Amino acid sequence: MGKGADTKQAIVERAMGVASLVGLEGLSIGALSKTLGLSKSGLFAHFQSKETLQIEVLRAAEMYFIQRVVRPAIAEPRGLPRVRALFERWLGWSERQLPGGCIFVAAATEYDDRPGPVREVLVQAQRDWIETLARAASIARDEGHFRPDVDPRQFAFELNAFTLSAHYFHRLLAAPDSAALARRAFDNLVTRASTHP
Amino acid sequence: MGKGADTKQAIVERAMGVASLVGLEGLSIGALSKTLGLSKSGLFAHFQSKETLQIEVLRAAEMYFIQRVVRPAIAEPRGLPRVRALFERWLGWSERQLPGGCIFVAAATEYDDRPGPVREVLVQAQRDWIETLARAASIARDEGHFRPDVDPRQFAFELNAFTLSAHYFHRLLAAPDSAALARRAFDNLVTRASTHP
Repeated sequence: MGKGADTKQAIVERAMGVASLVGLEGLSIGALSKTLGLSKSGLFAHFQSKETLQIEVLRAAEMYFIQRVVRPAIAEPRGLPRVRALFERWLGWSERQLPGGCIFVAAATEYDDRPGPVREVLVQAQRDWIETLARAASIARDEGHFRPDVDPRQFAFELNAFTLSAHYFHRLLAAPDSAALARRAFDNLVTRASTHP
Repeated sequence: MGKGADTKQAIVERAMGVASLVGLEGLSIGALSKTLGLSKSGLFAHFQSKETLQIEVLRAAEMYFIQRVVRPAIAEPRGLPRVRALFERWLGWSERQLPGGCIFVAAATEYDDRPGPVREVLVQAQRDWIETLARAASIARDEGHFRPDVDPRQFAFELNAFTLSAHYFHRLLAAPDSAALARRAFDNLVTRASTHP
């Protein structure tokens, strides 16, 4: 990778932190150049447009998310350990990875009514995440950790719900018990799904 | 109420619809004057600043939410019927009230890292909502509909989670089964909390 690619990568990483705080829509090239202390023309040379920048940030965030949440979780034993790792690693990601918490949670409401290429990249990433959760639940069923009547998509909906509510209690309400509430919700969900509660 | 107040009220209502789509931060007086076909100076006469406009929209949305979700639900019999009405009315509110779905869900991630008066109004409204859910769960426990060991705050966290995930599946993923998933999640939660599942 040449110097240009390194610089671009460094800008995308810092832009990701900014976007976690102000939203992807707040990532104008002008505002970013001020925040990062870089020239506007330099940023334009790398990204051409705000939309390109937003898509690069989203793609980079997805790559990080896969590296730090999905892949290590998938390396856990099949079944419940893997399901639990996905949830725990999501909590860790949202609490520690970026200053404004999970960038996808913020982007989800920013782009739900904003059609276009940024939304398409986001929706695909989020469908993949729900699919990853459902597949993990399905494997837990195959392994006999979960009951045969557990619906993987329903399980994914409920697990995803607890990540969203954890983000809301933590970042909006500043509730000190947000992680405890999220873990107990997860345990309740798993107990209900399990063959041997 | 004089003509000025009527006009202001009409502007706030239309601004609420716009905010549900583009976010409260998208409510600049300039952009709104274009969208609503009103003069910028006319809007300024009513609101003075973007922040005043955002706060008025948020307060109006809270008033609607109380009128259409909280008050009719509280009129239901104490206990489980009231808990169920809060959830069902939230779904109806998010699906039908505003073009972009629940304005509070969008505002939650917009303002979680944006300190100031808009955030304070939002946080108070959202704390009240969680408190309303917890109180309804606590009454269901007193009425013997829920088990004595049900934790009202935990119940509120999980019910709130299902509203957030319903919004995400419906508006971002455009999943046709979003309401069905949300209702089944709610039923699972209630079954677990109930004395007689």
